[in-house]
Amino acid sequence: MSKAEKRAKFEAVFTAIRDELVEYFKSQGMPADATAWFTQNLDYNVPGGKLNRGLSVVDTVEILKGRALTDEEYFKSAVLGWCVELLQAFFLVSDDVMDSSITRRGQPCWYRNEGVGLIAINDAFLLEAAIYWLLKKHFRADKSYVNLIELFHETSFQTEIGQLLDLITAPEDKVDLSKFSLERHRLIVLYKTAYYSFYLPVALAMYLCGISHRDAQDPYALASSILLPLGEYFQIQDDYLDYAGTPEQIGKIGTDIVDNKCSWCINTALAVANPEQRAVLDASYGRKDAAAEQRVKDIFNAVGVHEKYAKYEEDAYKRIMGLIQTIPEAGLGVEGEVKLKREVFVSFLEKIYKRQK
Amino acid sequence: MSKAEKRAKFEAVFTAIRDELVEYFKSQGMPADATAWFTQNLDYNVPGGKLNRGLSVVDTVEILKGRALTDEEYFKSAVLGWCVELLQAFFLVSDDVMDSSITRRGQPCWYRNEGVGLIAINDAFLLEAAIYWLLKKHFRADKSYVNLIELFHETSFQTEIGQLLDLITAPEDKVDLSKFSLERHRLIVLYKTAYYSFYLPVALAMYLCGISHRDAQDPYALASSILLPLGEYFQIQDDYLDYAGTPEQIGKIGTDIVDNKCSWCINTALAVANPEQRAVLDASYGRKDAAAEQRVKDIFNAVGVHEKYAKYEEDAYKRIMGLIQTIPEAGLGVEGEVKLKREVFVSFLEKIYKRQK
Repeated sequence: MSKAEKRAKFEAVFTAIRDELVEYFKSQGMPADATAWFTQNLDYNVPGGKLNRGLSVVDTVEILKGRALTDEEYFKSAVLGWCVELLQAFFLVSDDVMDSSITRRGQPCWYRNEGVGLIAINDAFLLEAAIYWLLKKHFRADKSYVNLIELFHETSFQTEIGQLLDLITAPEDKVDLSKFSLERHRLIVLYKTAYYSFYLPVALAMYLCGISHRDAQDPYALASSILLPLGEYFQIQDDYLDYAGTPEQIGKIGTDIVDNKCSWCINTALAVANPEQRAVLDASYGRKDAAAEQRVKDIFNAVGVHEKYAKYEEDAYKRIMGLIQTIPEAGLGVEGEVKLKREVFVSFLEKIYKRQK
Repeated sequence: MSKAEKRAKFEAVFTAIRDELVEYFKSQGMPADATAWFTQNLDYNVPGGKLNRGLSVVDTVEILKGRALTDEEYFKSAVLGWCVELLQAFFLVSDDVMDSSITRRGQPCWYRNEGVGLIAINDAFLLEAAIYWLLKKHFRADKSYVNLIELFHETSFQTEIGQLLDLITAPEDKVDLSKFSLERHRLIVLYKTAYYSFYLPVALAMYLCGISHRDAQDPYALASSILLPLGEYFQIQDDYLDYAGTPEQIGKIGTDIVDNKCSWCINTALAVANPEQRAVLDASYGRKDAAAEQRVKDIFNAVGVHEKYAKYEEDAYKRIMGLIQTIPEAGLGVEGEVKLKREVFVSFLEKIYKRQK
């Protein structure tokens, strides 16, 4: 199946669950204006992204089972995939309000639509509520139901902790590079991105396949020990491409420097800058000013951010491949159950390694 | 035990769970600035209200069991009570951002504190996340665990639906009374207030006491059939006191008229206003202008809002008392289990009936 066909098949499941949610809304006696608003909230904010996180639930279930899925298996995997996309939509809609962002996925941020404004905050809550409504509807009878719910709770908590760290470390309007460090950056990336983008989809797929927790050699702990470094690598790459990628490559103009983002690049530069370079960074980072931005980029070049990134990427690739090899070739898990396989992680790593966008 | 002693005992449990949450935060490797922020978020936003909702969980467990609680029973009831207060804090912190409110519980709204601003949105999420973390910590081994989680999910969804209805019916900056009606008001009150303020605390207490669901004569359905009208009555009384209560009585100055609130009073007036009165209401409601406010109040007086409220209150009291009598005198439930008792509801109703603040 082509990538476009896979996407279309996954999107068809969104239409089905969107209709279920809207029907529930109507069944509660909601008037037409409220129902139309809720429908628009779902349609505007949930599909339309790259869908990497959602699709990776389906892909992982297929790899774990090692065969094509039945229609029912596909549907349930895709529902969980859309729950990840709903979680992301909940975060993005509210992050855009907090960051005063302008556009998202090539359209105005939801809160910037006529008549929406801060109602977007409550709309974000409704996107989150939809996750648990869908889990109850489709998984209540499954033995993994409590695990699925708890995983969404814990992942939400972690992501919100990461968002707090980021917001207090790098407020857009108050530049203070003394708060930055590579250690702080690692913590933000781990909590704000890696858990929900990498561990969550895989763990959901594992629960759906009936993989059990174990006291020793827990497959979930092992998956996490690979996926969190993978998520860190992904975000560092993202940070690097924001600085080094051309707009043609990355499909957008990088703004991390002018936006005072706690990016891997600035933290790498801060770690090695001499006092003069540090003074320039302090004076120029996070300013809405092209000349200041260029001064920062010049220092990034001077201290060797390109070379450091190339080395980081090689090291990360090797290190993560090494972690993947700790999984027994025959898979990890209980006899008679679906086992955790190396291929799940190799497939993620190969998609990320040396990507240009 | 005096009211102040009851409150102090309940507040001591907050200190305990606040410490648990902060310890968890630290154990995740969070730096001191993030831990201090999270602690301040909890301390500033969770206690400090009237605590009616939280205390009513404890009160209801005591009534249902018909005896003093053991220390462990008290603690678990109080944890659930604080979960209700956390849910309310989640809503209030975010509502204040959405409504651009100024003060809350006699202090500046959280978002108006130096350096907070829109970070308050993420802080609200963290208050919500704390609920599920506490449920897992204290109730994971209980057979009601899934019921407790689902009840919080459903109640959150309902409250957010109510908030959406309210926000699109009565935006502060765009007065359009044609959207108002007593039916719309009833729906907003039911979803936005009654579920979380009245049904949630009682249903939590019922789960804690081990009361089972039943297909016929389900105690939860019966409780809901009494508590939702009770919540409606409570909110209508609140709306009426905002208009008719003196500041000495209600401890604040009513602002529903200038704030374009979809209150019971305006909807009652709209239902009977003649064309001239309607024109004055259209031109004067929701204006930040004392003369316009007075014109609205004059029409409320002229159409008999006072008399209509007095009649409403008498009818509501009798109707709800009648509903309470549908519970068998010996209680409703399964032999050998704790039974649902009339006293739970009588105690709520007596606290509300003819209250002046």
